Amino acid sequence: MSAMKADPEELKARISRGPFNQILGLQVDELGEGYALIRMPAGPNIMANERYVHGGAIGALIDVAGDWAVATQYGRPVPTIDMRVDFLSSGRPGEDLLADARLVKLGRSVSVADVRVFHPGGKAIAVGRALYSTPVDAE
Amino acid sequence: MSAMKADPEELKARISRGPFNQILGLQVDELGEGYALIRMPAGPNIMANERYVHGGAIGALIDVAGDWAVATQYGRPVPTIDMRVDFLSSGRPGEDLLADARLVKLGRSVSVADVRVFHPGGKAIAVGRALYSTPVDAE
Amino acid sequence: MSAMKADPEELKARISRGPFNQILGLQVDELGEGYALIRMPAGPNIMANERYVHGGAIGALIDVAGDWAVATQYGRPVPTIDMRVDFLSSGRPGEDLLADARLVKLGRSVSVADVRVFHPGGKAIAVGRALYSTPVDAE
Amino acid sequence: MSAMKADPEELKARISRGPFNQILGLQVDELGEGYALIRMPAGPNIMANERYVHGGAIGALIDVAGDWAVATQYGRPVPTIDMRVDFLSSGRPGEDLLADARLVKLGRSVSVADVRVFHPGGKAIAVGRALYSTPVDAE
Repeated sequence: MSAMKADPEELKARISRGPFNQILGLQVDELGEGYALIRMPAGPNIMANERYVHGGAIGALIDVAGDWAVATQYGRPVPTIDMRVDFLSSGRPGEDLLADARLVKLGRSVSVADVRVFHPGGKAIAVGRALYSTPVDAE
Repeated sequence: MSAMKADPEELKARISRGPFNQILGLQVDELGEGYALIRMPAGPNIMANERYVHGGAIGALIDVAGDWAVATQYGRPVPTIDMRVDFLSSGRPGEDLLADARLVKLGRSVSVADVRVFHPGGKAIAVGRALYSTPVDAE
Repeated sequence: MSAMKADPEELKARISRGPFNQILGLQVDELGEGYALIRMPAGPNIMANERYVHGGAIGALIDVAGDWAVATQYGRPVPTIDMRVDFLSSGRPGEDLLADARLVKLGRSVSVADVRVFHPGGKAIAVGRALYSTPVDAE
Repeated sequence: MSAMKADPEELKARISRGPFNQILGLQVDELGEGYALIRMPAGPNIMANERYVHGGAIGALIDVAGDWAVATQYGRPVPTIDMRVDFLSSGRPGEDLLADARLVKLGRSVSVADVRVFHPGGKAIAVGRALYSTPVDAE
């Protein structure tokens, strides 16, 4: 895997420029080579009801985390081609969600990322896998 | 497939009670036997940037639409087990998104729904397939 | 969608040249623009045990059928990038399986196909969705 | 996770009783708590053509490996509900394929397994994730 082409600080800042990312409150906790740790803070905005985090918010977190793992290789977010989410247990109110995303494959036309979502205490919430399009101007 | 067990008006009203659904602005346009048409109105809140609707918002719409198609059989939303989303083209600003969801299988322990997302003019945006858990108290 | 670039007779013949396709007994029943109907004949070779068709054989049938639907546009089979299979009910011994595959999207770098597997009498067995790589020399 | 309920030797022997498993030549190399390592030997039977292993054979290997990882908890194979496969690089002729399958979740109604397929030298070929139905008589 090539050296990280992204300016990490610029990539970190970029996540909160997107309106929908901002609604979710997404933050980049860590970025590395083909690796991203994204935080979605607890809050009423991501809830399905008083008891459960909305699965759609968890899916969005997975999409973004995988994208940021790929983005470390290209310096910017890339289009998602498809994504799959398996929900393991329900997210609880009052606890942040962390998404640990890792590149599985960096390909000429598509890249694959694996994402694990959990509460800070370690409770597994969901796993996801997504496919991202390689930018046409990538060397 | 059994007769619709849900009170359609109650189910329609219920969608906007969830905080995250409310942020997405979700509305039930139609409900039928194993069928739901859900609308996500255009607006700055669902955008990734000025040009594209966020894929995570589209994924959330698919999750909810499939859920509502299953909900027509049980009278209430059900837990999502897993989902897959394929993005076909990017959603444009200023145009609502419609999700047409249909039951593929109503099973003793799991149900499958197929969802098609498009702009009102007909442009295909995404397709999704999701699995939902059958309520334990379902006859 | 462009006119069918494949010689249908050549494509039909090609399916049984592959050793694994031959073991499955795959035959092309119909080919059209972005459409393929593939038959996997009943037989002991595709069984998990005396009662059920093996899910892996059904998955392989889905992979091939989607591929042949895309192949009508390029004149030859294309690499599969990913696939998802949902099993709806178990395949019965003594009955052929038919896979109806249709192009959902023909893209510059990837194509999407939807596949429905059923017994000739109509009983739904599985649905699948797969992504295929566009040949680099495609115009 | 409960103690392994399966007789490992009986489970290992069982894999080659299924006709389709036998065609694929599947063997259990290792079994542990929620873990299975399944081998699909190189051979002409699993090839798409002279150069590539058939994706359908790889998908079948993933289905079976995940099933055997779950089977260590119930003493017998269980029905697959759905499966997803991402192909990372093409399988080469003359090299066995190994599938390392691990339980991600053992649930009351469904279980999730993760599978990694590789050549003995370590080359990654595919990753898969599948959902299996919990036997109704499981405690």
